[in-house]
Amino acid sequence: MAEIDTFRFSDSEYETRLSRVRAAMEARGIDTLITSDPSNMAWLTGYDGWSFYVHQCVIIGPSGDPVWFGREQDAQGALRTVWMNEPDLIGYPDYFVQSDERHPMEYLAAKLTERGWHTGRIGVEMDNYWFSAKGYQSLSAGLPNELFDVTNLINWLRGPKSPAELDRMRKAGKIVERMHARIAEKVEPGMRKCDLVAEIYDASLRYDADWGFGGDYPAIVPLLPSGADAAAPHLTWDDKRMVTGEGTFFEIAGCFRRYHCPLSRTIFLGKPTQQFLDAEKAVLEGMEAGLEAAKAGNLCEDIAIAFFSVLEKYNIVKDNRTGYPIGLSYPPDWGERTCSLRPGDRTVLKPGMTFHFMTGLWMEGMGFEITESIAIGETGPECLSNVPRKMLVKD
Amino acid sequence: MAEIDTFRFSDSEYETRLSRVRAAMEARGIDTLITSDPSNMAWLTGYDGWSFYVHQCVIIGPSGDPVWFGREQDAQGALRTVWMNEPDLIGYPDYFVQSDERHPMEYLAAKLTERGWHTGRIGVEMDNYWFSAKGYQSLSAGLPNELFDVTNLINWLRGPKSPAELDRMRKAGKIVERMHARIAEKVEPGMRKCDLVAEIYDASLRYDADWGFGGDYPAIVPLLPSGADAAAPHLTWDDKRMVTGEGTFFEIAGCFRRYHCPLSRTIFLGKPTQQFLDAEKAVLEGMEAGLEAAKAGNLCEDIAIAFFSVLEKYNIVKDNRTGYPIGLSYPPDWGERTCSLRPGDRTVLKPGMTFHFMTGLWMEGMGFEITESIAIGETGPECLSNVPRKMLVKD
Repeated sequence: MAEIDTFRFSDSEYETRLSRVRAAMEARGIDTLITSDPSNMAWLTGYDGWSFYVHQCVIIGPSGDPVWFGREQDAQGALRTVWMNEPDLIGYPDYFVQSDERHPMEYLAAKLTERGWHTGRIGVEMDNYWFSAKGYQSLSAGLPNELFDVTNLINWLRGPKSPAELDRMRKAGKIVERMHARIAEKVEPGMRKCDLVAEIYDASLRYDADWGFGGDYPAIVPLLPSGADAAAPHLTWDDKRMVTGEGTFFEIAGCFRRYHCPLSRTIFLGKPTQQFLDAEKAVLEGMEAGLEAAKAGNLCEDIAIAFFSVLEKYNIVKDNRTGYPIGLSYPPDWGERTCSLRPGDRTVLKPGMTFHFMTGLWMEGMGFEITESIAIGETGPECLSNVPRKMLVKD
Repeated sequence: MAEIDTFRFSDSEYETRLSRVRAAMEARGIDTLITSDPSNMAWLTGYDGWSFYVHQCVIIGPSGDPVWFGREQDAQGALRTVWMNEPDLIGYPDYFVQSDERHPMEYLAAKLTERGWHTGRIGVEMDNYWFSAKGYQSLSAGLPNELFDVTNLINWLRGPKSPAELDRMRKAGKIVERMHARIAEKVEPGMRKCDLVAEIYDASLRYDADWGFGGDYPAIVPLLPSGADAAAPHLTWDDKRMVTGEGTFFEIAGCFRRYHCPLSRTIFLGKPTQQFLDAEKAVLEGMEAGLEAAKAGNLCEDIAIAFFSVLEKYNIVKDNRTGYPIGLSYPPDWGERTCSLRPGDRTVLKPGMTFHFMTGLWMEGMGFEITESIAIGETGPECLSNVPRKMLVKD
């Protein structure tokens, strides 16, 4: 029935995911789970489309395949992208869209009731962009029992990647290699940021005949602040020209069928200042120490402590986490929002877990980013892409 | 203090906006307003950055300038983008980020309490992507009184655009003209979708010396489904080739400094089928009727009814709204989420209101989009861009 299969995995992969979710539900005593996170929806069903600006979700009921719920017109997109045969799609009428009189979650409550799924213990993702306070109130009002918070229940299961998922992430790694190579080739004093971003997008998208694939949109747009503005981690771009005597970091990701490989590098135009050379030395040494600790059985905090210890030696303070899990994502975040690489996070590393080892420094007057995306292995990490791990200096 | 000023309007424009918000708050009896919508945050303060994947907001207290609240590291971005002198920035420590032990909204509650802003009537945007159910619970738990729902209070004020805002939207209109011209130039049978998207991004971003500006990222990525898949309105792209005998719609927007001009066109490769010719005739005639009704004093539903009446004449059923307000936006939506162009919406049209007149048809076996973005005037609408209003046929 479905016509576009490029985004899908094998049925058995989806069936495995579903049974893992059901096991986790059972362990928490959840009869019906409602997931609003587009990444979780895609992971469970293959559903892909830019429809997350209206209320939608996937429902895992007490039995059977996942049920897709969304705007009526988007059921057409679901039909074309989900793995299930004769999929169970609930579309709400268009007058529920962005109305101040009715709410899609009222409609969902009624549909759950029709199916007799309203009486059990129902789990919702309370801290998710796509499940608003009002959505929660509207759904609650239509159901007899209190809702249970299952934020990140699925996200945690997404942590260790299957071989097919790792394959996608390595392809995303290829793409980000090409993006950084393009930047290195094109960047020069006088070039406008918006033109450089055009180059970055071009390198992220084009079909490569040798690879046999092209790119998808990343969950975060390119971030490339220069000079003192690079003290701010999340500025995007403007029309200004690149200037000699300034460092710029490029925080970008390759994306292949919604799977990400983020990777940052820093470029200095002209002769780097001592501050940049010191930052490079500390980050590269710290990264080696962190990668050494990135193996199965260790903890998330082990990577962070190894990295921070080196920074400390160099009297550099970084008061933010140094990484997060990555994989399948939709805007606004390419992270999975479960564990973090920071002291105190005692999550045990398992083979196939994937992280953006975010060793960025945002300091007074400058920013510096050289990062890696890695997959945890039994004895050490695999870097998901291969970009020269150094500051690029262009005179 | 701030170094990047490209995204900012004049101080007096921001002061006007603030006083309009305070008047609306007073009318609703709100002492303190908390806005989590990145578009509202930018409209009030100029704040710009891709940080909306963590909890953040702007607070309008009983007096004084807006207060920015966000992750500590993002205060650096705020410092560089907001209009306020010596801005009042509250940054929460990084261990609040994506933690299952503590929530940024607990921190906010404590800060409001310190300022004595906790006892009044506090308004929050209950139905916003960026104010989660958990965020609501955490904030509520830290404050003595019930929170009030002010969803879209600011969005409604954003409806009629200032001359400076209209200027930005016309610039976005220039960009979308260039994007459609590029598609028309490049599209041909055999071209891969991902390569066509690379062309679209290039045209949306490059600096134009005649114009004196380049482009920003749109709040929605290009949508370009072909053939029967175009029955689904929100599919993005894949690596497949464009094929003779298929129609493809291109739903894209130009974006200039976060202001959008969406515009869709349909291209048929080869000889269009009768269904496409019929759709074109109905949509163009319906659009004329709708534009006729798009003037100050009329209602939103007048545009919709005028359009739908023509469709009815041609026995075409469109069971979704036919437009929405546009302007300043961040992902996931370039709409303002207030009124809609649909029967029953009796919002009065005012000069300077801007809409995407979304006359798209998603039907069995095909999709067809020819749309316009318009500004309401006293006697009729202004089209914000000038792209030939017809189906493009390329043999």
